[in-house]
Amino acid sequence: MNRPDIRRLPKRADPYQAQDALLKLVSQKTLKTEKIPLEECLGRVLSKDAFSNLNIPSYDKTFIDGYAINNEETKTANPAKPTAFEITGKLFPVDYPTIIEVHKGEAIYVACGAPIPKGATATVKVEETRLHESTVEVFREIHTGEGIIPLGDDLRKGQLILRKGHTLRPQDLGVLASLKMTCAEVYKKPLVSIISGGDELLKQCQTNPAAIANNYALVVAGLTSELGAAPKQMGIMPDAIEKVTEMIANALENSDFIITIGGSSVGIKDFVPDAVNALGKPGVVTQGVLLRPGAISGFGIVNGKPVIMLPGHIGSCIAGFYLFAAPLIGAFSGSNAAVLPKINAKISEDVKNGPQFRFLLVHLKRENGKFLAQPTEGGSSALTTIVNSNGYAMIPPHTELKKNSDVDVFLFNKLEMTEILP
Amino acid sequence: MNRPDIRRLPKRADPYQAQDALLKLVSQKTLKTEKIPLEECLGRVLSKDAFSNLNIPSYDKTFIDGYAINNEETKTANPAKPTAFEITGKLFPVDYPTIIEVHKGEAIYVACGAPIPKGATATVKVEETRLHESTVEVFREIHTGEGIIPLGDDLRKGQLILRKGHTLRPQDLGVLASLKMTCAEVYKKPLVSIISGGDELLKQCQTNPAAIANNYALVVAGLTSELGAAPKQMGIMPDAIEKVTEMIANALENSDFIITIGGSSVGIKDFVPDAVNALGKPGVVTQGVLLRPGAISGFGIVNGKPVIMLPGHIGSCIAGFYLFAAPLIGAFSGSNAAVLPKINAKISEDVKNGPQFRFLLVHLKRENGKFLAQPTEGGSSALTTIVNSNGYAMIPPHTELKKNSDVDVFLFNKLEMTEILP
Repeated sequence: MNRPDIRRLPKRADPYQAQDALLKLVSQKTLKTEKIPLEECLGRVLSKDAFSNLNIPSYDKTFIDGYAINNEETKTANPAKPTAFEITGKLFPVDYPTIIEVHKGEAIYVACGAPIPKGATATVKVEETRLHESTVEVFREIHTGEGIIPLGDDLRKGQLILRKGHTLRPQDLGVLASLKMTCAEVYKKPLVSIISGGDELLKQCQTNPAAIANNYALVVAGLTSELGAAPKQMGIMPDAIEKVTEMIANALENSDFIITIGGSSVGIKDFVPDAVNALGKPGVVTQGVLLRPGAISGFGIVNGKPVIMLPGHIGSCIAGFYLFAAPLIGAFSGSNAAVLPKINAKISEDVKNGPQFRFLLVHLKRENGKFLAQPTEGGSSALTTIVNSNGYAMIPPHTELKKNSDVDVFLFNKLEMTEILP
Repeated sequence: MNRPDIRRLPKRADPYQAQDALLKLVSQKTLKTEKIPLEECLGRVLSKDAFSNLNIPSYDKTFIDGYAINNEETKTANPAKPTAFEITGKLFPVDYPTIIEVHKGEAIYVACGAPIPKGATATVKVEETRLHESTVEVFREIHTGEGIIPLGDDLRKGQLILRKGHTLRPQDLGVLASLKMTCAEVYKKPLVSIISGGDELLKQCQTNPAAIANNYALVVAGLTSELGAAPKQMGIMPDAIEKVTEMIANALENSDFIITIGGSSVGIKDFVPDAVNALGKPGVVTQGVLLRPGAISGFGIVNGKPVIMLPGHIGSCIAGFYLFAAPLIGAFSGSNAAVLPKINAKISEDVKNGPQFRFLLVHLKRENGKFLAQPTEGGSSALTTIVNSNGYAMIPPHTELKKNSDVDVFLFNKLEMTEILP
């Protein structure tokens, strides 16, 4: 028989040095932006500082339902001897701008949001008054400005509202809309193409065309989208160098970076590194890292775009995803915030680590108000292990963690918050 | 002039009693479900327990690139005296099912994911071997099962995988897909119609048709969608009882519940409670709660569907939203998880509260690894105050909180996690 053409991995890299090298290679990128309607901006990242172009409110208005008066006239008011005002008009929010004035002894009915009439210095709530025909009685001294939101109280023209890199929340959209903005300039979502290998998936597709053969790609796509990027599943590459090269080349055209799953190890049919090398300089930068699981992870650069090469085994694939793809999404997103929620916890059992970094899957939970990180590794990092996990810890080489010692847990994404807090 | 037709609020309700009453009124609802493609299930809530219908893997396979052998033959192997095997074949993942066998003195090359050939009891990694023409040397004793994932190791047929009420994450979709599922049965997203009042918004629309007049509805819609419901902005109701009634009636047809913003207080043009009463029994259940801000919040029930009446002032509107609308979304979502992330923190200043519950807006931040809740109330709960906040605390009546005492903060939603952790 033919001798299998076994290749050996290059010297394995320190995972964090490799990660730094990757991020450095893309750090000079100018991030793409787009201007989109505010209604579509929820969760998107602002690409420039937002300043107020108006005073808000743009006139003195009331935030109560009641009467606008001159508060000087209530100086002597008390329950036994109320001050009476003649009601001479009504103002509603719709009535701005108004020429109505309040004179001595007069009150104007104002509905919440209405403009303050000229001559009024305060408002008094309906609930604090008594009505007699067309007069209204006030039973206490009303202070200047009561119930009034003065011009510019909320926002002054020129004031900085939100910083570049901020993730837009509902209230942010509200304040931008109140400034008559209808669109915002945000960073484009990073476009991430995902390609899975190889022939066994294609065979599954033939056997059962309705089923989802590349379910690991589904997982990676979900993780990618939860971190704020736009994943695109590009299908399955067969175990053939020409086809692998072609698929990677096509995917590169329409994405910020590519993730391949499988086909990048030292096996006979592992064509991804060869394809990446064939497509352009520098090609493969890192193949293999001192990480367990995930040792086969690596990346290359083709035409300035990263190709993240993830192992085909799910536990290793997830480890490689968080080592290379997740920080890359962060770099392309323009966000000021950390890519992953990090929570300090106590480890629930002793963990002893060998000469490599260890990607330790954990289930983080709260017990008596404290966070406990429970290692979840069952067999060989199967999909159910990931289902039983909500995050991971990176254990440095030659480390012995005693039960109850501190460990930083990175949650997979914000979806995992749902069942942790509270 | 005409005497303004001022109405008075009914006796104000305890906010939590009112909330309980609302949730009790809808607790008998049968939640609607739908069967949708797995690709669309991210973040959706499973509506029935999911069991494994297969053994995964469905046959013994390897998770390494290497050689399948009978490990008995390596008992004496050591670096000085390796055991040699004749390579008699290759197996790839695509080769399942296989009839290939390993006999004494033989090894089969196996690629990661390949089936284990008959006669093999373990696998040894390429990296741990040396190749000579068509033989391969092994330098240590290999243990039974090394590198093998046995049949059913990941999932046993009939095993419970995910519980009803679980929010589907990327890895959950992966495991369901690995069971050849293509769809999942999930709860329908609660449909929430949002109507804002009144004439001043319509006037703004006329003055500046391009701008977003009802920006508070935009905020409420965003909060609603971040909690997992599907908001529908129904536009602006004018200050006219017939129109208000008609808009609420129409919205009721196509939603699980309605949120109105404004028009529900004691002002002359506050027609929402009248409309709700006119539309059916019991009509308004609660109008006014002992809550500051948010006192004007209330709800009614029309044809068994809730109408949440929120105040028109933004701070009060948000308070009413979290008192009534947020728990209602939780009830309609079918999720097992808490509606809001709750974080225990230290309060950054003294807080003294009067006879009502206080909806205290705060900015939660981490300082030296501890959570600090900083009250954000500036003026009169303006939109910028909400922008400066990421959550709230509910302070009971007649409570005096000293600086640095404990307080539970509810984050507005998971988007707020972004800038808190880490």
